[in-house]
Amino acid sequence: MARYEARIEVTHLPGILDPQGVTVERALPALGYTNVSHVRIGKSIRLEVDAADEGTARAQVEEMCERLLANPVIEAYEIHLAEFAG
Amino acid sequence: MARYEARIEVTHLPGILDPQGVTVERALPALGYTNVSHVRIGKSIRLEVDAADEGTARAQVEEMCERLLANPVIEAYEIHLAEFAG
Repeated sequence: MARYEARIEVTHLPGILDPQGVTVERALPALGYTNVSHVRIGKSIRLEVDAADEGTARAQVEEMCERLLANPVIEAYEIHLAEFAG
Repeated sequence: MARYEARIEVTHLPGILDPQGVTVERALPALGYTNVSHVRIGKSIRLEVDAADEGTARAQVEEMCERLLANPVIEAYEIHLAEFAG
């Protein structure tokens, strides 16, 4: 049994409205930043999972994303897995 | 002038309460996941910035994090910058 650290980035699917990103992008010019575009804001999730091997850990994290961590109807997710160093 | 894509991960500073992470961690055992711990939920921000070079782009993104994108009193941020490929 090993411990794996998962970093999951949850983003909006293309075409899905991102109101937080729109709000930030609208606020930037008033602060003097006129050279910024395509602001998108999503979630970043970190967690640790105990599993027999990396494949098992990845399969479980994917299942957790589908069931709880992301909403697959409007969100995409990207999983980065690394063996826990301590 | 080049375009850079920035990926910013905003996380809670150590010791700062993360209510979203706590809620998710509490929900997981009820779904059958008893081997997950240390759930932390933060923000993931992606944006594009036009700048003369990578150093200028990074300095501006750092300033934007301090002023708007993160709250340095309770949050840490990590910036990944890459030249925009198209």
